Formats: sequence, structure tokens, C-alpha cells
Amino acid sequence: MVMDWSERFSPYGRRAKASEIRELLKLLDQPDIISFAGGIPDPKLFPRQLMADVHAEIFADEALSNQALQYSVSEGYGPLRDLLVAEMKSLGITCTKDNIVITNGSQQGLDLLGRLFIGPDDKVLVARPTYLGLLQAFTASGPTYGDIAALTGPAPVRAKLAYAMPDFQNPSGETMTLAEREALLEGARRSDLMVIEDTAYNKLSFDGPLLPSLMELDIAREGDIENSRVIYCGTFSKSVVPGLRVGWIVAATPIVQKLVLMKQASDLHTSTLAQMTLAKVMECLPAHHADTLCDTYRPRRDAMVQALEEFMPEGVTFTRPGGGMFIWVELPEGFDGAALLARAIAEERVAFVPGSAFYATQPKLNTLRLSFSATAPEKIREGIRRLGALIAREHNGMSRAATA
Amino acid sequence: MVMDWSERFSPYGRRAKASEIRELLKLLDQPDIISFAGGIPDPKLFPRQLMADVHAEIFADEALSNQALQYSVSEGYGPLRDLLVAEMKSLGITCTKDNIVITNGSQQGLDLLGRLFIGPDDKVLVARPTYLGLLQAFTASGPTYGDIAALTGPAPVRAKLAYAMPDFQNPSGETMTLAEREALLEGARRSDLMVIEDTAYNKLSFDGPLLPSLMELDIAREGDIENSRVIYCGTFSKSVVPGLRVGWIVAATPIVQKLVLMKQASDLHTSTLAQMTLAKVMECLPAHHADTLCDTYRPRRDAMVQALEEFMPEGVTFTRPGGGMFIWVELPEGFDGAALLARAIAEERVAFVPGSAFYATQPKLNTLRLSFSATAPEKIREGIRRLGALIAREHNGMSRAATA
Repeated sequence: MVMDWSERFSPYGRRAKASEIRELLKLLDQPDIISFAGGIPDPKLFPRQLMADVHAEIFADEALSNQALQYSVSEGYGPLRDLLVAEMKSLGITCTKDNIVITNGSQQGLDLLGRLFIGPDDKVLVARPTYLGLLQAFTASGPTYGDIAALTGPAPVRAKLAYAMPDFQNPSGETMTLAEREALLEGARRSDLMVIEDTAYNKLSFDGPLLPSLMELDIAREGDIENSRVIYCGTFSKSVVPGLRVGWIVAATPIVQKLVLMKQASDLHTSTLAQMTLAKVMECLPAHHADTLCDTYRPRRDAMVQALEEFMPEGVTFTRPGGGMFIWVELPEGFDGAALLARAIAEERVAFVPGSAFYATQPKLNTLRLSFSATAPEKIREGIRRLGALIAREHNGMSRAATA
Repeated sequence: MVMDWSERFSPYGRRAKASEIRELLKLLDQPDIISFAGGIPDPKLFPRQLMADVHAEIFADEALSNQALQYSVSEGYGPLRDLLVAEMKSLGITCTKDNIVITNGSQQGLDLLGRLFIGPDDKVLVARPTYLGLLQAFTASGPTYGDIAALTGPAPVRAKLAYAMPDFQNPSGETMTLAEREALLEGARRSDLMVIEDTAYNKLSFDGPLLPSLMELDIAREGDIENSRVIYCGTFSKSVVPGLRVGWIVAATPIVQKLVLMKQASDLHTSTLAQMTLAKVMECLPAHHADTLCDTYRPRRDAMVQALEEFMPEGVTFTRPGGGMFIWVELPEGFDGAALLARAIAEERVAFVPGSAFYATQPKLNTLRLSFSATAPEKIREGIRRLGALIAREHNGMSRAATA
């Protein structure tokens, strides 16, 4: 007898659904497709030789390698947390090791935070559009969602927490101004909400220094990280490598203590070897590594912006990000990003992510996310040219249909 | 203003509590303590040179190392899943790659399974005592618990699933007989329950071959893994190294598909490099590696059993495991393992884990878990001698108090 498993799943098990992005990542394997789909770092930027040297160094030392291969504590490898204290200091945030827990990339940080804070009737405020991974992680707790823009209105908002990616947001590429940051925090105080600050792309600032983080601004006002309502999620995925799955959370100690217990229950600890490796990489990576990343990605951003200006028909708008990996495109009303993707792949061999996946509620179907991170400028230009031609054809067809 | 975080936590956040084991692991750092506390593999048994060679090999190849450091798919590295299909075949279980998802050790497997199946009103059947990590992982879903022994009674049991570690159980060291396995499965069929089979210690069989796994027995009866109600959790933590955090789940494809979605939402994927490393280690590790492990741990088991027979006062009983890492001790009524631990550390410099942590409900306070895995035989003998002396002193004191 074949069992009917679906009847046995928990409410979360039933809610868990396949993501469009994931299905799309498979398209990257087809070599004739120009893919703007995944937010994938260019592997040429991985500090491969340094990683090789660091592993060789660890394995040359018996005690060190035994430690690297053994169980370790759930809060994370001490020297890595020490280095992150210094890193946070350089970002204007004073904290101690006890304010830091290591996670499997920032995705696990979001998963643990959702489980720590969100009960079944809680509301979470997110941007429109917002990061898909946040929506996936929070599916476990099944909150309702509201628009984070409501926070800056005059009335308090009844919600549990707000989630924001202030720098070079995935998917929009947009950066919050200093005034917007202050207004978000002011709104969070008025409504007594916590704020999760996702800083995944903050090393990829192409046009100048970063603005102060939400956590830095909140600590400046509240006097101490222990009084801050901001919870900071960091990751090595965009600044070093994503494959080792190492990130971190910075927060007031009562939060970190709970996260450590939950981390222990969910997978004991992040790979000891991966943590030791990233600690040594942090010590040895040249200071100009971030410049190297930006010097590679900036011309790709420039090429994409220029090509969009040149090839997109009238009525198409798009963002001009100051960093990160993404540009957000809005098409005229009536377009459907998912239908366009099917034609883009079939007719033009170009891929992207339909924007609807990035909305917690009421998706705008006429939107797309384009990533410029993994494609050379000439290929970006060619891909946008093809995409622009397809959109122009579709648009003309729609106009004719409307007039007919 | 200092924020009151505890009011903001979810029901799970409030339930998450510190574990005694975790606090005790810190004692291992004090060199004069003889610790039988953690279930830690002996690092001398790590295939350190092979791991070093495998890493060097991966980093010598540009394409391979770029792949190792890049994002990868949530279900896990294909070649590792292929090798695990062969490994499962050698264990009598026929499955395909689609029946396997890679997890961060079996602990994450348990976490994902709890979240997939357990809703708030569900009941889970566990042994008395049972694995602490299962109880921690399932805290997220907050089930009620029943005794797995009820499954073999005449009446059906109303519950969602049963959890069992049939070989060299943590913490008891006990192995289920073939008749007990068949009875458990028969009971699970009668009550229409799923069964999670945790095989963490199955490479550590000191005295002969393993009995058939629950999954093998169930497939033999149901004809195909797709019809099996058993979900198999495996790990490299005891057979290779624990520090890389790599394990796997084997189950019917509808379950694996859901687990892949949940894995993606919780941390995208397990470290690509760690998975590639373990795939190469599986290919290169000599077939006699498991014998090497057993040849090291067997004399430790023997030394501990012998010392317990020699030094424990009358009224103390203990298990005689055929493998694994643990012996379970029951003291006379009136003893409290936690109180004994405090005195054992202070007076005898010996550590263990009080048994009460291993009960889902109604803990038996007069129990202890002793691990023999990380201590040389002579030191085991000395530690048990000291512990026996302490227990005898306490017991005499209790008897005098009772007579007085």
C-alpha cells in the first residue's frame, strides 16, 4: 500500500512549497543561456589560493586539525567570534563575543530568528518587494505580513518585528537613505517592534562608503547593544565564499543565548573546519579584497544600467543600485514576469527571476529581478538587448490588442 | 531602557532550555578530570592524512574548488548521494538518489523531521531513556510523549510517530533484538505510525555483524522504499568525523521532496566543500576503517564493564553494550545523578551525564550515562574505581540514615 504522506505532514510541512528561484538555478547549467537569475558570486573572485593555503596550514598541525574535525560549541569558534567583534567595531558597532552566534550563512540566522520570535498570530513587516529567503525561512512560523512603509506613518503599527536590508537590497538593489533609516527606527520605537537588519551585500558598495547601519544608529541612540532593538545578520557568502555556509548574528545577549540553544537543537554547531578556515581567511585576506569585488561587479552594474537605458522600450522603469548584485525592473501594467520568462528562455535564451516571488502579499506581476554579478559586461549587454527586444515585441502586441 | 526580551519570544523560544550535557562538555577542558560525559569520538581515529590529501586534491583543481566554494543544491552534492545509495545497498536497503537528502549531521535530520511531521497536538513515542538530541530537536514543535513500549501491547496507540535507535542506543548502549524490531514495526503498522530510525552508532559494532535495520525489515515486508513507513537517519559523525556536520536522511520520495524544501528554507544547503570532502573520503577510506574504530573502542568498553563489575557496590546495575559509546548505570533508589555528579567532580574528579536528561517524561533520577569512547582503558578503570568508591560511600551514608 502506498502511504498518503501529505496527510501526515505538520501545518508547516504542508505550507512548505517549491521556490521559483530554485527551479531557475537549474537553468544556469545550460551554457547557451544568458542568466540574470541567481544572485551568485563570480567564482573567479573566490580567494582560492588563500583557502587552499589555510586548509593546508590547518591540516599540517595535528592538534589544530583534530580540533577542526571534532565537535565544537554551538555559539561558534571563539577566535572567529573575536574577529567578528573587531569587524563589527570597524562598522561602528561595539559588542562582545557574547553578542555573537555563528550560523550556517545568514539564511540560518533568519530561520532561527523566525523560530525564536514568531508565534502563529504574529505580524511581520517587510518591504515590497522583500528578500525571498526571509519569506521562505519564516514560512515555518506562518506569520501574517504587513508593509514596512506603514512604520513611518503617524500611527503605531501592531506587529512583532520588521525586516529590512538597508544596503543594496535583494531584490530591488535599493539603499535606504539616512533619513529613511532614522524614520524606520523611530517607527520601530513608536510601535515597540524589533528590527532584523540583513547586511548580506554590505561589502559590495560600488560608489562610496556605506551609510551607518540600523544597529549603529540604534546603539547611538540607546547607548548600548544590550538596549538595542536591532538584530544584525551578517554573512561571508558575498564577501568571501558562499559554499562553506558561514554567517553570524549580532544582538543583545539574552537573544544570543536563546539562539545558541536553538542552534544546538537544530544542528549542534556550524562546521568547525569551516569556521576555523574563515577565521584564518579574515586574518589573511588583504584589505583591498572588497575593492577587488567592487572593481569586478561595478562595470557589470554599469553595463546593465546602460543597456537597460538603451534597449528597454518606453514604460519600463528600473533601479540604479549603488552596489550589490541586483537591478529591479518594472514593466508596463499587463505584463506577467513568469509568462515573460518562459518566452525569454524559449525565444531569446535569457533568464531572470519573475518579481512576484519577492512579495509577501499581493505580488506585482509586472516585475523582474536581474542579477549582474555572474555575467561579463558584453554578455550583459547582449542579454539585455535580447530581453529589451522581446519586451518591445510583447508590448507592441499588447498595444495592438488593446486598440483592436 | 533595557528591553524585556523574554516577553517577545515565541512559544518555542520560551521552551528552549539549556542542556545539562552542553554545560558538562565544558568540563572536558579541565585536564585532571576523568570525563565519561560527552559522546565524543577519539580524534586519534580521524582519518586526518586522508582529509588533508582530499582537501589538497580539491584545491589543486580550479573547477572543482570553485564548485566546492560556491552555492549548491539543497538536496545535496550528487556524487555523495550516489555513494550513499551504494552504502545503503550494502546495508540491505535499495533506494535511489531521490530518496536521499543531505543534512548537517543527523541532528539537523531530526530537527527537519520534527518540523515536517509534528504539529502542536501530536504525540511521539520514545524509549525510556531516549536520545537527548531528539528531545531538543522536537522541542521546536512541542509534542507530547509516550513510551514506545506501548506499541508492542495489544491495543493500537494514538500517536504520530515513533523514534528508535536500534543499535547501541545513546544513552543506554542497548541493541534491539530481531524480535523486538519486528514487534516495533508490527506495532507501528497496527497503529499506523511513522518510525524514525537513528543509526548514528551502527559502524561501531564490536562483537559481530549488525542485525537488519528497521528500514530493511520494513521494505522486505512492504516491497519498496516508497511504501515504507520508516525514515532512516545516518551520519558521518561517528564513522568518519563529526566536525564537518554531514549526515543524511533516507525516506520515500514525497518525504525527501518536502525535506529538501525545508532544508532550503533553513540554511540553503550543507557546506559544498564538506560534502565533496566526504564523498572523496567515502571513496578512499580503507574498508577496514570501521575495524580500526572497533578495535580502539572495544577494549574501552571491556575495561569499563570489567571495572563496573569490580568496583560498583551491590544494588548498582549497568548495561553491557555490543558497540557504540555508552554504558547506562542504574543506582539504588534514592540516588540523584545530578547531586552525585556535583560530588563526583568535587571529590573524585570524575564526570558523567546524569540520566534524568534522557527522559521525555518522569525522569528516573537514579541513573547515569557513562561514555567510554574518549578515554584510555587504564584511565577508565581508575575513573570507575573512584566513582564506585563515591557511590559506596553515599550508599552507606543513605543506609545508615535509613536505619537511624
